Amino acid sequence: MTPINIDQITTSSIKDSIPVGEYIFKRLEQIHNLGSIFGVPGDFNLSLLEYIYRTKLNWIGGSNELNSGYSADGYSRFTKSLGVLITTFGVGELSAINAISGAFTEYSKILHIVGIPSTKDLNQSLLYNNNDFCNRTNLHHLVPNIDPLKSSDFLIYTKMVDNICCIKKILMEKDDIIYILDEIIEEIFKTSRPGYLFLPVDLSDQLLTCTNNNLFNSSIENIHTNYLKILDNEEEIKINQLTNIILEKIYQSKNPSILIDILVDRFNNCQEMLQNFVNISQFNTYTTFMGKSIINEDSCNFIGDYQGELSNIGIKENFENSDLILIFGPYLNQINTGFFTMDLKTNSIIILFHPNYFKIINGIIETEEKNFNSFKILTKLIKLLDLNKLPINPPLKFENKLRYPNIKSSQKIISQSILLNKLQKSFLKPNDVIVCDTGSIMFGIPDLKFPKGVKYIGQHFYLSIGMALPASVGIGIAMKDLNIKNQRLILFEGDGSAQMTIQEISSFCHYKLNPIIFLLNNNGYSVERIIKGENRSYNDIKQWNWCKVFEFFNKDNSLNIIVDQIKTLEDLNKVFKSLNQNNDNSNIQFYEIELDEIDVPWRYHHINNYRLFPKSN
Amino acid sequence: MTPINIDQITTSSIKDSIPVGEYIFKRLEQIHNLGSIFGVPGDFNLSLLEYIYRTKLNWIGGSNELNSGYSADGYSRFTKSLGVLITTFGVGELSAINAISGAFTEYSKILHIVGIPSTKDLNQSLLYNNNDFCNRTNLHHLVPNIDPLKSSDFLIYTKMVDNICCIKKILMEKDDIIYILDEIIEEIFKTSRPGYLFLPVDLSDQLLTCTNNNLFNSSIENIHTNYLKILDNEEEIKINQLTNIILEKIYQSKNPSILIDILVDRFNNCQEMLQNFVNISQFNTYTTFMGKSIINEDSCNFIGDYQGELSNIGIKENFENSDLILIFGPYLNQINTGFFTMDLKTNSIIILFHPNYFKIINGIIETEEKNFNSFKILTKLIKLLDLNKLPINPPLKFENKLRYPNIKSSQKIISQSILLNKLQKSFLKPNDVIVCDTGSIMFGIPDLKFPKGVKYIGQHFYLSIGMALPASVGIGIAMKDLNIKNQRLILFEGDGSAQMTIQEISSFCHYKLNPIIFLLNNNGYSVERIIKGENRSYNDIKQWNWCKVFEFFNKDNSLNIIVDQIKTLEDLNKVFKSLNQNNDNSNIQFYEIELDEIDVPWRYHHINNYRLFPKSN
Repeated sequence: MTPINIDQITTSSIKDSIPVGEYIFKRLEQIHNLGSIFGVPGDFNLSLLEYIYRTKLNWIGGSNELNSGYSADGYSRFTKSLGVLITTFGVGELSAINAISGAFTEYSKILHIVGIPSTKDLNQSLLYNNNDFCNRTNLHHLVPNIDPLKSSDFLIYTKMVDNICCIKKILMEKDDIIYILDEIIEEIFKTSRPGYLFLPVDLSDQLLTCTNNNLFNSSIENIHTNYLKILDNEEEIKINQLTNIILEKIYQSKNPSILIDILVDRFNNCQEMLQNFVNISQFNTYTTFMGKSIINEDSCNFIGDYQGELSNIGIKENFENSDLILIFGPYLNQINTGFFTMDLKTNSIIILFHPNYFKIINGIIETEEKNFNSFKILTKLIKLLDLNKLPINPPLKFENKLRYPNIKSSQKIISQSILLNKLQKSFLKPNDVIVCDTGSIMFGIPDLKFPKGVKYIGQHFYLSIGMALPASVGIGIAMKDLNIKNQRLILFEGDGSAQMTIQEISSFCHYKLNPIIFLLNNNGYSVERIIKGENRSYNDIKQWNWCKVFEFFNKDNSLNIIVDQIKTLEDLNKVFKSLNQNNDNSNIQFYEIELDEIDVPWRYHHINNYRLFPKSN
Repeated sequence: MTPINIDQITTSSIKDSIPVGEYIFKRLEQIHNLGSIFGVPGDFNLSLLEYIYRTKLNWIGGSNELNSGYSADGYSRFTKSLGVLITTFGVGELSAINAISGAFTEYSKILHIVGIPSTKDLNQSLLYNNNDFCNRTNLHHLVPNIDPLKSSDFLIYTKMVDNICCIKKILMEKDDIIYILDEIIEEIFKTSRPGYLFLPVDLSDQLLTCTNNNLFNSSIENIHTNYLKILDNEEEIKINQLTNIILEKIYQSKNPSILIDILVDRFNNCQEMLQNFVNISQFNTYTTFMGKSIINEDSCNFIGDYQGELSNIGIKENFENSDLILIFGPYLNQINTGFFTMDLKTNSIIILFHPNYFKIINGIIETEEKNFNSFKILTKLIKLLDLNKLPINPPLKFENKLRYPNIKSSQKIISQSILLNKLQKSFLKPNDVIVCDTGSIMFGIPDLKFPKGVKYIGQHFYLSIGMALPASVGIGIAMKDLNIKNQRLILFEGDGSAQMTIQEISSFCHYKLNPIIFLLNNNGYSVERIIKGENRSYNDIKQWNWCKVFEFFNKDNSLNIIVDQIKTLEDLNKVFKSLNQNNDNSNIQFYEIELDEIDVPWRYHHINNYRLFPKSN
């Protein structure tokens, strides 16, 4: 057989049928807010990649698969739609596995397509023959059987991801792609979690049996809101009943509060509905650590970030004093709850609106619905809310404080607390997109009160350092795809985190993105130094010339890249002033800020003093 | 409980008992050729890392966990002993998983120690309580249950590595470390594959019950050769019988050949025994692709690299003409067999010496022993070999040819074939250590005839690009630990491969290693361009200023780093001349060689012409 030259297969010449590879990209192209695909080529996915050029989708090649996975995650977090990652068999998919695990943990919508061996191999036509001197099932990129006299398992890698995806499918019959792909995409949107398509290398070029005309009939455009569709009469009745119960609780309460958590962000339309509910109810509203920036923080009933003992002054008392607490999109895990220090009163009524369940806790569970998306209640709740029956609850006059650590820990002029203070006072602008890598400064961010429309993104629970830099590449690509020009992309990156994934910084140049990057140089893993080994070599990192980063990583002389160091308050003021006077976002700006090795925000000292991190004794 | 300050726990003050963490490193310190430990700190492993400072072991911090995994692999390949990798729960261990999968696939001895949550958590004292509004089993770094109303599985990651390790153990009782650690180490040496120790964060500081005096009684020093110990009388009889059968075959043969494969390298003492056998038998000797450099290539009975249709001119015919073929340490997989194009005559007798089995194939299987390490036969075989009975077989006069591709594919002055030719003629020296990343030039290496004592290292079957750069860091560290000063460490690195793991280049500076690096700049993934998408964007990579690599990655002005570009033959000659005149290896040398996008060695064209790579139709 001669190789197929795909340029010769046009949809016209083969009478309206198209190859599997082309179908995949054309279907993905129909998804709302999906304009780019991330990944790294490999011999098992090249036959698929060829077909991207028959669509308007952009190919965003990453420096390695972990970075591409992080980028796809960032893309999805920003667009609230699908991030697509394409890797190759074994070496590629495994390199990306930590990004997928993080996406699963933090409810991010990644479709991971993996190019795998041909259907012939998968059908086990290849079996080890003991009479042969070699084992023909030992294909490159494939882990062999531990017993050299047994066949390799071609599905070995598919089994490793069972617990980090919501759905996985191996395409074995070309025509199945039509329902399999939709099934995967729907499950990803329904659960907001990664899904896998394993695509044998021989199938991309195969023509679908049905014609092009019949292929794209089923609409995929509203797939991202389908999960809110009310299924049947029974569900409708349930929603009405629950709405009435909730309204009754609200009307009876004297001091209700709203707590917004991350899952509100992960399901489309929820954020808008919640903002509406917050606005009309005027209840005191709080966010969790992960929920930060979901609700506009400049409204008078937004109080701040609640995380138990790790809340800022006054917030814990105010929140825990509520007699009714409505928690939307809860993901109340270790980090998000201030290490499980939320201390709600036993006589407070807690109502949890989760995409998988609904619960009213009143000391014990009063009402519970499992396998039910309680976001479905929101529309009705807002519609039926009688403002006249709401508790008279004077708005809390509350000023969020920028706190400083009790212990003087910085030998440098600029401390993280000073930086946070300056950010609040003279840098942040409405609609900024702020990305923060895992590191100590992350624990100071909850004290900021963001201007309207700020979007804040970080991996605050899975906490894999280095994720934010490639995620910012994905976010930058998303902003470009959505033609957003008037918002700034701002990245806070620790030096230790940056070393993990630094090569992806060249994607900002290659794809002409324009982030403002603050490289927080505190000479190693400060976040670990506070826990243990303040002066130990294991907390040291390699010494790099940060200011020369783009001299190496960029070769395009046409780019205008600004690089500078910030060592003094004057430097900081000057940079912030210049950044805010300049409304032209058409260049990359990179600032290395010199910080002390053991300078961290007050909240991180608090965590350590409480010995909330893993205890060794 | 107050935190333990480990500096206060000296072995004297607690009457000769020591903490688990100290025990681990002290035991590892006893292993032959083990001087350094690789990894990245994280909150679940800090309590362990503290104890490394009570030993002479060096901590080699990697920029990320994948890189550290590759470094540990390289270390093990060079020392033929253990490479130790330490990572943290979830985010760390998963980031390294592709390195472990590669090590398993290529028989590399890595001990991967993962810091995990405390025994209290693992004992499931933490279970989800439906009455609680939060799920207390959702710890940071841990993938949650897909059902938010169920407990997380603390062992979720341990289950993902079942098929990529020879042994895994979770330490639950402190005193068990004494036999568990030895069991893991022994299994790793026995199988030459990675093993896992999962270490709860609370156990490192706990004192062992038994005293220091009794701890290190069992010798671990010869663990790396223990696998050759003859178990019992029955095994002794078996070995005698097999030796006699083999000797009979040898004495009857007219034209015997030896084929050396990679597993000879992976088990200690085998290489020396085989070299001895090759020398005294004077049989024509060949290596596989992966077996290259295991046998001295300057001896007159070494012929070259046999890989079926992908062998160099004359080699295939000569090898396949043998009536008796002794294959030592076979790993005859897809890549190593020239894509299964080895075509041995049905009337040739093939004898396979594998660490897991022994086989004589004579059309059909004539003799077979499973679960038997056939390297155990070698001592006896060499001892009993009667030189007078050997076939009179005049040595083959054979000149290995440096071939050029039939198609003129390079627009640049220097092609890969020219480079290989020059390497052979005017660069390679005895005892060079040559590392080559996955890429097209790898397929030209088999045509080189190495000077005596050259050690060649590459990941030729798993083929994960980017592995070689961090692996070279591991090899450099190993050379330093073994106090090797008169051997050169030479790395051939493609530009696409280098982008995967480039940050680890700074480790050469940080740890003062002195590699000679040839960066083969062919503007992207040439290895993929030949298969598909010659001009496609998915085969492009980002444009970097390679010559400025150390201006960014090194801040130590005391280092003398030589960086240059090679574009012409004069440049190449000049560099090789200067390198070979200079016997001072005390600096890093980095040369960017400009190559054409679609220039590859003849063998890679051959692979592609035969459509040996994954077929899409």
